[in-house]
Amino acid sequence: MKLNAISKSFLTTLRNALSDDIIRPADPRYLEEPRGRYVGQDGGMVALPRTVQDVARIVKLCAQAPVGIVPYGGGTGLVGGQVMPEGPMPLILSLERLNAVRDVDPLENVLVAEAGTILADIQAAAEAKDRMFALSLAAEGSCQIGGNLATNAGGVNVLRYGNTRDLCLGLEAVLPNGEIWNGLTRLRKDNTGYDLRNLLIGAEGTLGIITAAALKLAPRPASLGTALMVVPSPQAALDLLSLARTRVGDAISAFELMHRQGPEFVAETLPDIRQPFPEIPEWMVLIELGLNQDADAALSDLFELGMEQGLVEDGLVAQNTGQRTEFWSLREHIPVANKRIGSVCSHDISVPLGAVPDFIARGGEKIAELGDLRVNCFGHLGDGNLHYNVFPARGRDRSDYDPLRDDVKRVVHDLVQEYNGSFSAEHGVGRMKVPDLEKYGDPVKLAAMRAIKSALDPVGIMNPGAVLRA
Amino acid sequence: MKLNAISKSFLTTLRNALSDDIIRPADPRYLEEPRGRYVGQDGGMVALPRTVQDVARIVKLCAQAPVGIVPYGGGTGLVGGQVMPEGPMPLILSLERLNAVRDVDPLENVLVAEAGTILADIQAAAEAKDRMFALSLAAEGSCQIGGNLATNAGGVNVLRYGNTRDLCLGLEAVLPNGEIWNGLTRLRKDNTGYDLRNLLIGAEGTLGIITAAALKLAPRPASLGTALMVVPSPQAALDLLSLARTRVGDAISAFELMHRQGPEFVAETLPDIRQPFPEIPEWMVLIELGLNQDADAALSDLFELGMEQGLVEDGLVAQNTGQRTEFWSLREHIPVANKRIGSVCSHDISVPLGAVPDFIARGGEKIAELGDLRVNCFGHLGDGNLHYNVFPARGRDRSDYDPLRDDVKRVVHDLVQEYNGSFSAEHGVGRMKVPDLEKYGDPVKLAAMRAIKSALDPVGIMNPGAVLRA
Repeated sequence: MKLNAISKSFLTTLRNALSDDIIRPADPRYLEEPRGRYVGQDGGMVALPRTVQDVARIVKLCAQAPVGIVPYGGGTGLVGGQVMPEGPMPLILSLERLNAVRDVDPLENVLVAEAGTILADIQAAAEAKDRMFALSLAAEGSCQIGGNLATNAGGVNVLRYGNTRDLCLGLEAVLPNGEIWNGLTRLRKDNTGYDLRNLLIGAEGTLGIITAAALKLAPRPASLGTALMVVPSPQAALDLLSLARTRVGDAISAFELMHRQGPEFVAETLPDIRQPFPEIPEWMVLIELGLNQDADAALSDLFELGMEQGLVEDGLVAQNTGQRTEFWSLREHIPVANKRIGSVCSHDISVPLGAVPDFIARGGEKIAELGDLRVNCFGHLGDGNLHYNVFPARGRDRSDYDPLRDDVKRVVHDLVQEYNGSFSAEHGVGRMKVPDLEKYGDPVKLAAMRAIKSALDPVGIMNPGAVLRA
Repeated sequence: MKLNAISKSFLTTLRNALSDDIIRPADPRYLEEPRGRYVGQDGGMVALPRTVQDVARIVKLCAQAPVGIVPYGGGTGLVGGQVMPEGPMPLILSLERLNAVRDVDPLENVLVAEAGTILADIQAAAEAKDRMFALSLAAEGSCQIGGNLATNAGGVNVLRYGNTRDLCLGLEAVLPNGEIWNGLTRLRKDNTGYDLRNLLIGAEGTLGIITAAALKLAPRPASLGTALMVVPSPQAALDLLSLARTRVGDAISAFELMHRQGPEFVAETLPDIRQPFPEIPEWMVLIELGLNQDADAALSDLFELGMEQGLVEDGLVAQNTGQRTEFWSLREHIPVANKRIGSVCSHDISVPLGAVPDFIARGGEKIAELGDLRVNCFGHLGDGNLHYNVFPARGRDRSDYDPLRDDVKRVVHDLVQEYNGSFSAEHGVGRMKVPDLEKYGDPVKLAAMRAIKSALDPVGIMNPGAVLRA
């Protein structure tokens, strides 16, 4: 069946079925995304439901019409999953009014939040009860947990605490037929049928709309330690990670690799951000440990051992919260600096951990063959997840490289494929990477995905064109 | 379409397509299960493929016939998922010959094993490289990793390391159409489409046959400590867990609750198993910690604090491996003793952690109202998962209680439902709990499950009658 564009009579039907002010013309912010690569259609409409019942009513009516729905969270996604630039005009459905933290239970280590709750608010609600919600990423001040779940967001603490799916115990969601699935369990063990929770997590709104979640909290480590260590190479960084694991087990919450290019972009575009080392080192890692005793001592110990083994050349252990914030600020401002410089092409890739040094070396060679380009390679080394972003030579503009863009992307993703890696480690597929999924994805898995999509959303109303071609 | 029973001509087709000795009459062991509640059909046939390609060929031919397939691992499941007692004679497909550990990578903390590998062999292969595979359960000497994955097995280390699904990075599987899905990724982050891995895990062989898996390893804690502590009540046990979390964070790998009834059954039926306390206490917990330093000191510290707070009345910290084994032996022999006593009815349930003490108190009252019965309540308190098993009064036989069995089950499961718990925490649905799933499961989820089953297995050849009614 073909989808219809929103019509005046459909808007009337929606308005009659819902309380006032739920259906409105979409502000421009609903039609944009952070990198400006996708723009929503003029004249778009947004639904702002207040309850899961509102959501169910809207989905039911859209399924009957049938009219497409684009679920909308914080709007911080980087692959165009939240913006539908073409096709029959869809209804944008924003979860922003479902933003209550329904419960925080420190004994059970569970927090229940509605989909529109901003991630930082969830972190704060957990902290208020002396617990931690471990998901942490640059957009945490504006992204919403529903979007984090829909895209299975990663971030800086995955090494210890896992991806968003690992932090979720249960979901409440509206399926494409408009029925409400009450799966808001807070159980640690529940083997009663297919794992619908994990199927919706990471489906990017194409199989249903998540409206609330039961989330796992963790004890807050008594002692948090943060250090920057200068390493001679990515291989040394990897060996340092292995050494750290031997010394402190799974207490390492973050292990972030930064190539010189990142801090250089920050220095160039954001001169107010303090650079911790007088000269920017070629490679450094940002390490964070959470222990029950003296994490700083453990970091100093690691530093000494790393020096002895030739894995570390210099280092700084944060002496107070201010310094800790400063180290993180450098890391978290790299994406901002990247945006100001203007990339030719960005890649959110992962490879098996052991392949990271090889990948970086060979990637650099292949990019150099294509032209005069700069590579900013940084990211979550502990997860094998690199943001491998390619930039114009100094003084040149990204538009100069338009004819090269597809080649750059192909070269990077082909290399990733060679290592059985992923062309989308943590950002998802959205609309941007649909062709990559078709090219690099396992065909048997793709066929299964299409079968599942047809089974749950036969008319294809849910986020049309995201993940799978509409 | 209706399934056909295996015919002579179908067996010829199978034999012609495969190398010799792959198709054989099924030994009795393939037709039995541990509790003897389900018996396979006389004249059953078993396929013993050697490769994933063999599996694919068999599934393709079964799909064409169409003939049902019952996947078979170690045969240790407790809910009849591995035995099909009625319906058109299926082909039993045992993975036992796919039993290679393909790779162990201590740097990446990854182990790749075929589905038929026995769990204990995987643990040993990890240990040989100074790593740990954390899944651990009573049947580990004979259960196979394919079955562990298909049922999302739990066990004693879930508190720290998660269920089987949390220990899996990637899968290779044959889908119901006979196609091989190569999803054997070893990536920590991979957001490229729907989570087919978690859909197959816990589907109990109804959506495909897992043939290999990439598994997560963990560093081995340098210091392991094990203690038995006598607690005045389940509430005290829960408070002790909370205290332990405050003191040692997530270093607690096991926190097992035992009511007096369990050790008493062991004393009665297995007198050679040593009882650590001169008098069996009403309630005790078995605690295991893995730390980088002196776990015994942490346990002694916990014991002291617990005594001060009135949460602990007596305790023993294992002084050596022999004593550690002895403590675990008591715990692990409770199911053996249960079998010798002969239960009226067994329940593998979970409730939210905070509800455990209430559930135990109210459950005891409700069972007492039904008749003269004994309750053996033990299990993984840290996960809210109790094995709540009901037995005849001393000197009476389980058959005396046949008329009561359904009432007992209903009372227990109704109470679980009241607390939003699960009627199958770690054993799965199999064939035994299909009516429970229909009664207690969320109807929207059930409809979605049926739609997914039809989409991936339209003829219904995969493990007919397990999880969903055939």
